[in-house]
Amino acid sequence: MITSAEWRKRLYAMQPNIYIGGERLRRDAPQLERPINVVATTFDCAADPAYSALMLASSHITGSKVNRFCNIHQSWEDLVNKQRMTRELCHKTGGCIQRCMGIDATNALYVVTHDTDQKYGTEYHKRLLAWVENFQKQDMVANCAQTDVKGDRSKRPHEQVDPDLYLRIVERKSDGIVVRGAKAHNTIAPYAEELIVVPTRSLTPEESDWAVAFAVPADAEGVKQIVRLANIRERISLKAPIANYSDAESLTVFDNVFVPWDRVFLCGETDMGGRLALQFAEYHRHSYTGCKPAITDIILGATALVAGYNGVGNAQHIRMKLAHLIGVAELVDAAGIAAAVNAKKTGSGAYIPDSKFVNAGRRLAGENIFHEWEILCDVAGGWYATLPFEQDWINPETKGYLEKYTMRNPQISAENQHRLFRLISDYMTTSWSGVQLAGQYHGGGSPIMETIGLLRDYDIQSKMDIVKTLAGISLDDPEG
Amino acid sequence: MITSAEWRKRLYAMQPNIYIGGERLRRDAPQLERPINVVATTFDCAADPAYSALMLASSHITGSKVNRFCNIHQSWEDLVNKQRMTRELCHKTGGCIQRCMGIDATNALYVVTHDTDQKYGTEYHKRLLAWVENFQKQDMVANCAQTDVKGDRSKRPHEQVDPDLYLRIVERKSDGIVVRGAKAHNTIAPYAEELIVVPTRSLTPEESDWAVAFAVPADAEGVKQIVRLANIRERISLKAPIANYSDAESLTVFDNVFVPWDRVFLCGETDMGGRLALQFAEYHRHSYTGCKPAITDIILGATALVAGYNGVGNAQHIRMKLAHLIGVAELVDAAGIAAAVNAKKTGSGAYIPDSKFVNAGRRLAGENIFHEWEILCDVAGGWYATLPFEQDWINPETKGYLEKYTMRNPQISAENQHRLFRLISDYMTTSWSGVQLAGQYHGGGSPIMETIGLLRDYDIQSKMDIVKTLAGISLDDPEG
Amino acid sequence: MITSAEWRKRLYAMQPNIYIGGERLRRDAPQLERPINVVATTFDCAADPAYSALMLASSHITGSKVNRFCNIHQSWEDLVNKQRMTRELCHKTGGCIQRCMGIDATNALYVVTHDTDQKYGTEYHKRLLAWVENFQKQDMVANCAQTDVKGDRSKRPHEQVDPDLYLRIVERKSDGIVVRGAKAHNTIAPYAEELIVVPTRSLTPEESDWAVAFAVPADAEGVKQIVRLANIRERISLKAPIANYSDAESLTVFDNVFVPWDRVFLCGETDMGGRLALQFAEYHRHSYTGCKPAITDIILGATALVAGYNGVGNAQHIRMKLAHLIGVAELVDAAGIAAAVNAKKTGSGAYIPDSKFVNAGRRLAGENIFHEWEILCDVAGGWYATLPFEQDWINPETKGYLEKYTMRNPQISAENQHRLFRLISDYMTTSWSGVQLAGQYHGGGSPIMETIGLLRDYDIQSKMDIVKTLAGISLDDPEG
Amino acid sequence: MITSAEWRKRLYAMQPNIYIGGERLRRDAPQLERPINVVATTFDCAADPAYSALMLASSHITGSKVNRFCNIHQSWEDLVNKQRMTRELCHKTGGCIQRCMGIDATNALYVVTHDTDQKYGTEYHKRLLAWVENFQKQDMVANCAQTDVKGDRSKRPHEQVDPDLYLRIVERKSDGIVVRGAKAHNTIAPYAEELIVVPTRSLTPEESDWAVAFAVPADAEGVKQIVRLANIRERISLKAPIANYSDAESLTVFDNVFVPWDRVFLCGETDMGGRLALQFAEYHRHSYTGCKPAITDIILGATALVAGYNGVGNAQHIRMKLAHLIGVAELVDAAGIAAAVNAKKTGSGAYIPDSKFVNAGRRLAGENIFHEWEILCDVAGGWYATLPFEQDWINPETKGYLEKYTMRNPQISAENQHRLFRLISDYMTTSWSGVQLAGQYHGGGSPIMETIGLLRDYDIQSKMDIVKTLAGISLDDPEG
Repeated sequence: MITSAEWRKRLYAMQPNIYIGGERLRRDAPQLERPINVVATTFDCAADPAYSALMLASSHITGSKVNRFCNIHQSWEDLVNKQRMTRELCHKTGGCIQRCMGIDATNALYVVTHDTDQKYGTEYHKRLLAWVENFQKQDMVANCAQTDVKGDRSKRPHEQVDPDLYLRIVERKSDGIVVRGAKAHNTIAPYAEELIVVPTRSLTPEESDWAVAFAVPADAEGVKQIVRLANIRERISLKAPIANYSDAESLTVFDNVFVPWDRVFLCGETDMGGRLALQFAEYHRHSYTGCKPAITDIILGATALVAGYNGVGNAQHIRMKLAHLIGVAELVDAAGIAAAVNAKKTGSGAYIPDSKFVNAGRRLAGENIFHEWEILCDVAGGWYATLPFEQDWINPETKGYLEKYTMRNPQISAENQHRLFRLISDYMTTSWSGVQLAGQYHGGGSPIMETIGLLRDYDIQSKMDIVKTLAGISLDDPEG
Repeated sequence: MITSAEWRKRLYAMQPNIYIGGERLRRDAPQLERPINVVATTFDCAADPAYSALMLASSHITGSKVNRFCNIHQSWEDLVNKQRMTRELCHKTGGCIQRCMGIDATNALYVVTHDTDQKYGTEYHKRLLAWVENFQKQDMVANCAQTDVKGDRSKRPHEQVDPDLYLRIVERKSDGIVVRGAKAHNTIAPYAEELIVVPTRSLTPEESDWAVAFAVPADAEGVKQIVRLANIRERISLKAPIANYSDAESLTVFDNVFVPWDRVFLCGETDMGGRLALQFAEYHRHSYTGCKPAITDIILGATALVAGYNGVGNAQHIRMKLAHLIGVAELVDAAGIAAAVNAKKTGSGAYIPDSKFVNAGRRLAGENIFHEWEILCDVAGGWYATLPFEQDWINPETKGYLEKYTMRNPQISAENQHRLFRLISDYMTTSWSGVQLAGQYHGGGSPIMETIGLLRDYDIQSKMDIVKTLAGISLDDPEG
Repeated sequence: MITSAEWRKRLYAMQPNIYIGGERLRRDAPQLERPINVVATTFDCAADPAYSALMLASSHITGSKVNRFCNIHQSWEDLVNKQRMTRELCHKTGGCIQRCMGIDATNALYVVTHDTDQKYGTEYHKRLLAWVENFQKQDMVANCAQTDVKGDRSKRPHEQVDPDLYLRIVERKSDGIVVRGAKAHNTIAPYAEELIVVPTRSLTPEESDWAVAFAVPADAEGVKQIVRLANIRERISLKAPIANYSDAESLTVFDNVFVPWDRVFLCGETDMGGRLALQFAEYHRHSYTGCKPAITDIILGATALVAGYNGVGNAQHIRMKLAHLIGVAELVDAAGIAAAVNAKKTGSGAYIPDSKFVNAGRRLAGENIFHEWEILCDVAGGWYATLPFEQDWINPETKGYLEKYTMRNPQISAENQHRLFRLISDYMTTSWSGVQLAGQYHGGGSPIMETIGLLRDYDIQSKMDIVKTLAGISLDDPEG
Repeated sequence: MITSAEWRKRLYAMQPNIYIGGERLRRDAPQLERPINVVATTFDCAADPAYSALMLASSHITGSKVNRFCNIHQSWEDLVNKQRMTRELCHKTGGCIQRCMGIDATNALYVVTHDTDQKYGTEYHKRLLAWVENFQKQDMVANCAQTDVKGDRSKRPHEQVDPDLYLRIVERKSDGIVVRGAKAHNTIAPYAEELIVVPTRSLTPEESDWAVAFAVPADAEGVKQIVRLANIRERISLKAPIANYSDAESLTVFDNVFVPWDRVFLCGETDMGGRLALQFAEYHRHSYTGCKPAITDIILGATALVAGYNGVGNAQHIRMKLAHLIGVAELVDAAGIAAAVNAKKTGSGAYIPDSKFVNAGRRLAGENIFHEWEILCDVAGGWYATLPFEQDWINPETKGYLEKYTMRNPQISAENQHRLFRLISDYMTTSWSGVQLAGQYHGGGSPIMETIGLLRDYDIQSKMDIVKTLAGISLDDPEG
């Protein structure tokens, strides 16, 4: 394992293929500093004894200690530990820890390449094993580039006017393949070393060009990342950890990118493309049972704190709202635990979480996130939205007025009042805010995706049979 | 263990202290037949190899096989198995399996008598152990009589105009105690052999007369059960299992009932009275993570079935509603699993489920039950509510019309159409229905009780500290 | 106008074509007494000076005073007055006043027959005018039989295996038509004098046999009413108005019923069949903006009262729930007012309420009704569900216990405590309860029907144009 | 009346007392351009024949035409017209039209000064009449500065550690009064000519110093406005109206501001202070029944448009969501209409809207706004949140990729796709977004304020009496 400083050094040496606001940038550009700080935390905590029990795992390949974000789940407890680690790290950075993309994609490939080889006599799993061994040894950071841009949503991949609207193989060569397309919403990609590409949906037999999975360096020839960034406002003198962190998403363009065979993990097996899409999604939804409760923890903490600062911490209608937040956080957490306890060991040896629980958990989180923000908005009152800029708290003409008139609970200093409302203001009314909301709603799959997941996998027939039996309707009745 | 026939025989020999509709009845009265059928199922399934793996446990006292409803939880897996057993048995009877009252009360006493003895040098736990051994050996059925009638809700027990509005000790004698009061909503009591009495709330030091727990035979001298019953309509020719089952609740009056010391498990230790009230509630809420998903399974099955019968099983807005039902059932189930996995081993050796998860789970169930009924109402349409009586389907003047005009999906016979709508009609529009709804909402604690439970136990301070840290507010700041 | 005694006399003289529980009954059968009491109220109040300002209208045909339930709306104020009258009368009977069916059907026919005549040169309107004049003069009560039994919901009327699953013309004769089919959920029909039959949905050109509207006496040859009744429990000594009222619904079978031409108001004009179905629905939804707030008033009153009896009338979380009930009642009421203020005068001279408001209002009511019951259940606690039967309050062996242990707020007598919980128990846990819930959800159109109504009529394009303009997208862009 | 150009000229001549981001600014500072554009619309539309019917009223003082934003409501139709005008103007500017503050404050003062004079023999109303005449003649723009900063929310004004935490009279002089304090969240204040100050809450007799209302020029000596601004991103080449508008809020500091008597409209009459606070709130909530449906119209339009662009405009689950938006918009609108129709003429001659309807309407709007944003987020998908910056659509290295991969429905040009997602991105993920959400939730009173309003004014007793009557409980029973 490496230190965060070593990791940054590796990053800064990469080819400059990051585009932001009309410029092409290197990875040491100031715009990327805050997002990189988030991922650096995953290295720092692994080296911190307070976290290492949670953050270290033994590689099932080499037996060496590895960062848990590089681990292949060998037991249901591994899944619980990943969930716990995720919730704790998100507390430190005030949001998405991002590096789960790598562990989720790696595990999904691990499971599905094994089954593909079994069915098709291919050797994807062996290739992947070699890739994972190196990935663990180098302590690397990976993005999973899954979501295609999708064009007309009412059409399938091969029906689009432009076939590149889903990423596809455009050439098969002796030494590898050439791919073209674009993947959207790629969190962590601008400061990951590896991009893992998997399909975004189920595929029909005529869609073998779209049934492709592989890994490439994030600065490979032909890869271009067009990045949308959102930060909270820069602090002038009111420094605070919240202002050190952020994230960034790429639209990652693959413009005739060559992938050598040893990095190709699926190539044409359409049925397995769909399974891989799904398996990544389910691992990733399990990760959300860790990070989403952490988000709720922060909203809960801010709500409880501001209620106290406002002098109304004991108001019953506010207490009811805190209870709602607790309920959501812990039910999502419970879903992750239940998914882990009911995990299945796959043919590959890796464990996969139970799909109905991950879908139910991620869906509850998604369906509540706007309401959670509403609760914080409700209890905080409007001052976070009309809070004058930090400069006005420095300007001697206005500073005194602001300190005088911001006072609430007289036990709390003007500075702490300012600090809390500044945090809420940053959290709720910056360009970062809306992006977070979108991510908390859509990331890992929007509620409608989990709804579809629940309906696809659930044994509704057995429930109908319970009712038939109670009603005296024969189960043998073919038409009943 | 015994058979259901042996159990019924024991019941029928009890003293007739059941009052229903102005009469005093024996336990073989026809009014009690359907509720008794429910509990009989717990004996029949224990003897059925298909269920025995789930239903049998080894007594930690004698090592013999016992019905799981008499078991003291020796591991977190025991808690999961109780949850699974509960969900499966409720499928058979179409509702509450009822016998969980005994296991939940017994385990709560087991945990709290141990700690009381540790603190106060009493010998309640030894007495209880002897009582449990016999309870297991005799394969007995117990009610837990917890909820006092409570009088003025804005007053504490000792502040009531009539001190009996919470059950209390009225005399302490050399051979035992005399108690007076009444306990409400006592499911299973009219056909249980034992009544286990525990306090209903936390108590102040001046309330030692109310800090009492004990077990008495359900037909003990001075015990009178005034019973409210609700059945679905009797079937004439359209026989169906759903019509064989029901439940019944007593207002159980304790009119100067004498309890010998070997049956007294708490007597004056007010702090432990509150703990016992809470511990029973939390075990019982864990049982609800088994039964409530079963109720949702039935509502889901009925909704999916009627949608198919109506020919609209694939309508997207109906599918969304099925997904909602699935989500609720599985999140409540997940909460039970997470509560079990995070169970703590107590000083007594028994395991207690994690309180935040049981509260979050039971609360979600309670908050959704009216909406679940709404979904079935929505998808079924109004025919279940205006369905003519069964006699009109027999009357030759009307039978033909009803069979002709009830036809929907032509693959389904008129009889099956009738059977399904009869079941939904019975489920939704009988006196039984409203009682079920109330039980599903309030039983085991209304949502407001779980809300209070969540707020009481949850570590909100740690969440506030996360936010303070992110905001740059010192955790050492005493007033911060 | 007539008295309720005169009306009852007329009813009792009708042919016995009512089937309940396997018997054929006259209209003076005891089973029908409570529902008939409801409608009698509409005669009694018309004669009561306290209500007459609201209940009397001037016939636009004869200029005489008529019961408002027989009036054709001549202004938007007429619509508001109907709404007000409905809300007030429902307070008296504790539920649906039922007679709105006649006024809504009559007005819908009034509007659509006029337009049909204009388009097709028919003379339906003239026939209707004669019928209405007599209807007003005789002060008659009408049902509107709209909902067909509908068979397979995924098929249209003419696609059903049995064409009678939607009521249709089976023969056209020189002196009239013969119809066959059945109409479901016919509130008031068993004690109405007239049945007004209208189509249930839009129709295609090949469905002219189903495009039929007419009025027949409720005991006409070939008409058979199979009735489902639901009453709250009979009171023994605790008499109360709530126990005097109820309603009843028929499945009305038309077994080759002959309708003379002067009672035929639509016969084959398929486009007008759809319009008539819709126009009745919209008038009827406007009536629901009167009755549904009245239901909420009762739930609100019961909730506030029981909170006070329990001693927790000031608890903040209960106050929040009262506010929710107020909000629902008054928003539904507001929708009715806005629909009236924005009413349009039709070619016939009658006013029709604005469809978007009636749909939005009725939908809000339907979407909240289960939640409203949940609130009453929540605040009342479980005692209404386990309340012993009235006989046990009379039985001297148990009466004393019940009076002692039912005490709550000591200012309230045991009898009043009993009265209130008896009312709530009757309201929430009798066979009547589930039927009421279904009616409050589905009656006048389920929320999904109003959703469809909103989407059909609403000018979404103009809202898209607002956004296009703000975004700088040309409105002229044909594909934009 | 004047033109917008004349108005801007007047603004620019004011004293520079605007503080933004550490600077003191004049009103022609570029930061204020977009908010000023919004208010300019109210002048431009008054001069536009397409709007003038709605926008012009006759002064009841002079009989001259005035801008409706300066009108005193002379009839319930005036209230409806204000509501209609508000909804339409908000469509043009994409959000809050802001100038309602003046009309609502002026009308509230008009009503309450009259009653104060009646009760106390003061002459506030006469002073106000003179002020209004000039206000109308000059076609002025006013802010209403109501919300005090409030300090410790659990304390009353006179109990605060710093008495200035509610604005108060610090000196009474022969020619006027001197006031000190600060008012928060003052929309429109930085570009209004007049600030109208009213109390924020009910007051006790010892709080006469806080019972004060007056008007001062917005740049009066001692007035300092510390302004928080939020704009959507500046457009480079993709110009669009949405980017021309915004709003701004001041924390308005009154540092010993002198107010001459002819501008003082309340001075010490504490009971009337509470009434004035409430009366302004209720007028302002009525204004929200105009603007909030306009916001929903925009969200609805954007949702419907993006669904079509994505090719899923007919998906049933999306259609359900559109219906929900329609329902909310029209129910809020209906509440405004019902409040107007039920308006009361006050002693002053001005009409006040019915409070229960304005509270129910504004509350529904507030309770839905987060969910409305959720719907747009849901249907739009994540692309608005990760949409690269406009510069990247200009940069030739990335432009082609973005145009290629943004394509969806092939009928829609790349530019229009870009335009729509840019608008949604600006709407949902800029610093403006979070401020809008807060304003839509809290502005005019948070839902909790309307809840309190509903509970305060509503006749719950009459509903309890309905239930008592139905239950047979005597209304005369004093304790019943």
